[in-house]
Amino acid sequence: MKQKVLFYHAGCPVCQDAERAVLELLDPARFEVEVIHLGQQKDRLGEAERLGVQSVPALVVNNRVFHINFGAKLTDLK
Amino acid sequence: MKQKVLFYHAGCPVCQDAERAVLELLDPARFEVEVIHLGQQKDRLGEAERLGVQSVPALVVNNRVFHINFGAKLTDLK
Repeated sequence: MKQKVLFYHAGCPVCQDAERAVLELLDPARFEVEVIHLGQQKDRLGEAERLGVQSVPALVVNNRVFHINFGAKLTDLK
Repeated sequence: MKQKVLFYHAGCPVCQDAERAVLELLDPARFEVEVIHLGQQKDRLGEAERLGVQSVPALVVNNRVFHINFGAKLTDLK
């Protein structure tokens, strides 16, 4: 079974660049990426916050958050 | 032929966490990671700077820099 990783973004250019890289780099045999647009899916903001996401783009693997470059603060997406 | 990606770090806890994630996530069939410890390999600082690395840990793919969380500023490693 593939391990699920979460990629949170907000459609910004920095986010798009990071999304391309994440989708390109990940081993597709072992990982499945769920891409969440927090600007459009505001119902997922609480979940992102609980996981520790402070800004987007961010990748969450095994409950560990990796903020990749900086696009926007989570608080600015509310 | 595998594509080379560069992972710059400085041995800090944030760096180690990111290194584990990068090495775990990357598709080993397509990518080869060179890990560079800028605290120990100071001769690589100029190269990192030219690539656009501003802080570590950072991953460089196709000349694009992805700063992952924040461990230390490049200028503090000089």
